[in-house]
Amino acid sequence: MTCKEGSTLESKAPHNPDLDRDRRHVWHPCTPMKDHETHPPLLIEKGEGVYLVDGEGRRYLDVIASWWVNLFGHNHPRLNAALQSQLAKVAHVMFAGITHRPAIDLAERLVQKTPPHLTRVFFSDNGSTAVEIALKMSLQYWQQTGRPEKTRFIYLRDGYHGETLGALAVCGTDLFREKFKAVLAPNIQVNGPDCYRCPFGLTRDTCRAECFDPMQAALDEHAGSTAGVIVEPLVQGAAGMKMYPAVYLEKLQAACEAAGVHVIYDEVAVGFGRTGSLFVCEGNRLRPTFLCLSKGITSGYLPLAATLTEESIYEAFYDEFSTFKWFVHSHSYAANPLACAVANATLDLLAAPEFFPRLHTKIKAMEKAAQGFRDLPWFGEFRQTGLIGALELVRDPSNREPFPIESRVGFRIYLEALKRGLYMRPLGNVVYFIPPYVISEDEIFFMMESAKASIQAA
Amino acid sequence: MTCKEGSTLESKAPHNPDLDRDRRHVWHPCTPMKDHETHPPLLIEKGEGVYLVDGEGRRYLDVIASWWVNLFGHNHPRLNAALQSQLAKVAHVMFAGITHRPAIDLAERLVQKTPPHLTRVFFSDNGSTAVEIALKMSLQYWQQTGRPEKTRFIYLRDGYHGETLGALAVCGTDLFREKFKAVLAPNIQVNGPDCYRCPFGLTRDTCRAECFDPMQAALDEHAGSTAGVIVEPLVQGAAGMKMYPAVYLEKLQAACEAAGVHVIYDEVAVGFGRTGSLFVCEGNRLRPTFLCLSKGITSGYLPLAATLTEESIYEAFYDEFSTFKWFVHSHSYAANPLACAVANATLDLLAAPEFFPRLHTKIKAMEKAAQGFRDLPWFGEFRQTGLIGALELVRDPSNREPFPIESRVGFRIYLEALKRGLYMRPLGNVVYFIPPYVISEDEIFFMMESAKASIQAA
Repeated sequence: MTCKEGSTLESKAPHNPDLDRDRRHVWHPCTPMKDHETHPPLLIEKGEGVYLVDGEGRRYLDVIASWWVNLFGHNHPRLNAALQSQLAKVAHVMFAGITHRPAIDLAERLVQKTPPHLTRVFFSDNGSTAVEIALKMSLQYWQQTGRPEKTRFIYLRDGYHGETLGALAVCGTDLFREKFKAVLAPNIQVNGPDCYRCPFGLTRDTCRAECFDPMQAALDEHAGSTAGVIVEPLVQGAAGMKMYPAVYLEKLQAACEAAGVHVIYDEVAVGFGRTGSLFVCEGNRLRPTFLCLSKGITSGYLPLAATLTEESIYEAFYDEFSTFKWFVHSHSYAANPLACAVANATLDLLAAPEFFPRLHTKIKAMEKAAQGFRDLPWFGEFRQTGLIGALELVRDPSNREPFPIESRVGFRIYLEALKRGLYMRPLGNVVYFIPPYVISEDEIFFMMESAKASIQAA
Repeated sequence: MTCKEGSTLESKAPHNPDLDRDRRHVWHPCTPMKDHETHPPLLIEKGEGVYLVDGEGRRYLDVIASWWVNLFGHNHPRLNAALQSQLAKVAHVMFAGITHRPAIDLAERLVQKTPPHLTRVFFSDNGSTAVEIALKMSLQYWQQTGRPEKTRFIYLRDGYHGETLGALAVCGTDLFREKFKAVLAPNIQVNGPDCYRCPFGLTRDTCRAECFDPMQAALDEHAGSTAGVIVEPLVQGAAGMKMYPAVYLEKLQAACEAAGVHVIYDEVAVGFGRTGSLFVCEGNRLRPTFLCLSKGITSGYLPLAATLTEESIYEAFYDEFSTFKWFVHSHSYAANPLACAVANATLDLLAAPEFFPRLHTKIKAMEKAAQGFRDLPWFGEFRQTGLIGALELVRDPSNREPFPIESRVGFRIYLEALKRGLYMRPLGNVVYFIPPYVISEDEIFFMMESAKASIQAA
C-alpha cells in the first residue's frame, strides 16, 4: 500500500535477464509501470536485519520496513525458527469446523494485549479484508438489532483503509478512489485534522481538537443512518504520515457513544508498537468497537490480519443456525497456521522486558537526528509519533506552499537515496522513516543524514 | 469460503482447555458459533498427506482439501523444502520498486501455462482480492479508453466470487449477499445453467447451452453500460458444485466479443488441475480477458493470489506518471516470496510427466466408486468434473424435490462422517469430494464408501 511515486527522470537500467522477465510479465502494485523502462525495480535476493541485499551484494537500508510491515528485521532467527517449527506440523488447515493452537494462542494473546472490552478475533489475510470484515459486521449488527437503516460510514478526508471496493468506499484520498467512484457505496466524508496547516492556528500539544466540529456535525446530521466511523488513529499513513493528537480520538469516542455509532480503529499501520505503545487503543480510555490489525502482526513475514470486536457485537450474531444470524464471511487461508506461528513469535519479541525501553531510546534518537533537517531551505515540518518520522518538504516554508505533484520531488529523492544505500519511498513531498525496530541508533543517524544528503542532491 | 452448515444436533464435546480458549476468543469464518457449544471444532495438531491428525492421534481424511486449497497433501517434502530454502534468503520484501526471483519466475510460468493472450500478472493475497483487482482493472480500462459509462458487471445466479464488498456485488447467492445488499453496487444478475434441473429437459453431454438466452438478453440490453461478465467456469462451487458444460463458455466468449464486454474467469477453485486440465481456459479456445487464481496456487500452504490479463488491458494503463493512468492498488504482502516459492514448487509438481496420467486414473476411480451411491433412496445426481465429485441428495428423486435447508441434512452427514474418519463439509444437501491429488485409489473407495455409510446413518 501507499503509492504516489515512480518516472523517467534519469536512467540507470543495467541489462539483467531477470529484470527483462519482470518487465515482460509482472504488473507491480501502485507503480507507473512505464517508469521501469528507465528505472527498473531493485532485484532483491536476500534480507539481513534492516538491510535488503541484491544479487551483487549491494545493501539497502529498508527505511520503510517493506511497506511498514517489518518490525524485527529480515531473517530473524526466532521468527524463522517459529515458522519452521510450525511447518514440521502442518502449513495450513481450513478454519471452519477446525481449529489449531497457533490461532487459539494468537487470538487469546491479542485479546489480552488490547483493551479489556475487545474479546473476539476474526482472522483474514490483509488490511483491506480486516476493514471489510469490520464494515460488514457493523452493518449486520445493526440489521440484527432493529436498526437496518444504519448503512453508511463516516470517514476522514485523506483517510486510507485499503483498496478492495468496500474498503475503498471509506478512503478519503482521491488518488485511490477517484477512478472507481461510480461503484463506491455512498459513505460520508468529513474534514479531519490537518495539524501542519491547522486552520485554527493551533499546535498539536495544546489544542483541544477544535477541528472535531465537522465530525460532530456529521454525527448530529447522520447518526440515524450511520453504522460507524472509521479512522486511522494518530497517524494517517498514506496521506503522508499526517499526525494528530489523541484528544481527537477522545472526542470521537464520546461523540460516537452519544450518537450510537460504532468506532472502527484501523491500526493496520500503527499497531504492534509503532507509535511507542503496543496499540494506540492501549488501556481502557479509547474503546473502539472494532480494531483492525495486519502488517506488523507477522513482523513482515506473511500475510495475516485480524479484526477484533466486543462481546455485544458477537452476541448479536450468536444464535441457532436456523436464524441465519451468523456471520457469513470467509477466506480460504484464514488463520493460516504458519502466519499465526510467526505472529505468536512476534508477540514474544514485543513482550520482552527490554523491548519498550530500547524502542524509546530509538524514538529519542530519531528526534535528535531529525534536528539536522531544520536548516534545509525546504523544511516544512518534521513530525514524529513513536518510530514513525515524517519530513514534509515545501516550496515555501513561510506560507507552507507545497511542491506541485508533477515535480515529483519525492521520486527524485528516492533515486538519490538509492545511490546512498537507502530504500525509501516518499509520499509526494513527505519523506518518511518507518524502520524496523532493530535499527541501531547509529543506523538511525546514518539513515537521516543520508536522507538529508539525498534531499539536497535532488 | 463456502458455508451453509453447522448446529446442536448431538453433543460430543469433550473437555479440552484449548477448545475452551477457542470458544472464548475465536470467531470462526462462516460458522454459526453457537454450534460449538455442543460440537466443538476439531483441534488439529498436524497434517500427513491426505490426513489431518488431532492431539490424540485421531486421523481424518481431508475430503475437501481444506476448503479446496490443498493439492499435494499436507507436509509435502518438496513444498516444505521450497519454503525453507526461500526462508533462508528472505521471507518478504515489498513489491513496489522492488522485485524478486520467486515472483518473476511464478509470473513467467503462469503466463506460459495459461492461454497465449494472457501476458500480465498482478499478485495479491486471496481469491476475493484477485476478483476485486479484475473488476477494478476492467472499470479503469473502460474509463481510460473513452467508455466511462461501462460500470456494471453481469454475474450468474448462484455464482460465488468472494466476500469483500466489491466481490460480493457479483455474487449470486442470497446467503452471502442478502444482509449487505444496501451497500452493494447495482450489478446485473442473470439465470445461468442449472443442469440437474434443466428447464429444457436436456443433458450436459448433448445440449447446446440453451440456457444461455438470459445472458444473451442481458448483453443485448446492457452491453453499453457493462464492463464485464464474471463466471466460475464449469463448476459453481459454493452453489453446491453445480456443473455445466463448456459449450456455455464458448457461447459466452463469442457473445462478449461481439458485445465489447470483458470476460472474467474466476478459476480460484477450479484452477491448477482440479478439473483434469491445468486450467479450464487451457489452449486458445477460451480467451478470458481476466483470469483470477488463488487457493491451489500454493497447494494449500500460504495465502497468495494472481490476476492475469492481456496486453491490450495493460497498455491502457501504461503511460507517464503524470497521466495517472497507472493502476493504484496494492496489498502490503503482494507477491510474498515464501508463498511464491511454494507456488513455483507446486508448478513443478504439476509439470511432472506422470502427474496428469495419475490424476486421470484417480478421476476414473472416483467415477467408479460413485456408482455405489446409486442405490441410496435419496440419490439425486452424482456429477463430476475432474477430481471434483458431488452427490446431490433429494427428498424425492422422482421430482428432484430438495430437502429443506432447516433439516440440516448436510450437517448430520458431517457428524456421521467424522465418526468414520472423514472431514467433510456438505453444502446444504450436496455431499462433495475435492480430495488432495495424492489420494490413492484405495483411499478414494474408502472415502466414498464411508461417505455412503455416513449418509445412511444420518
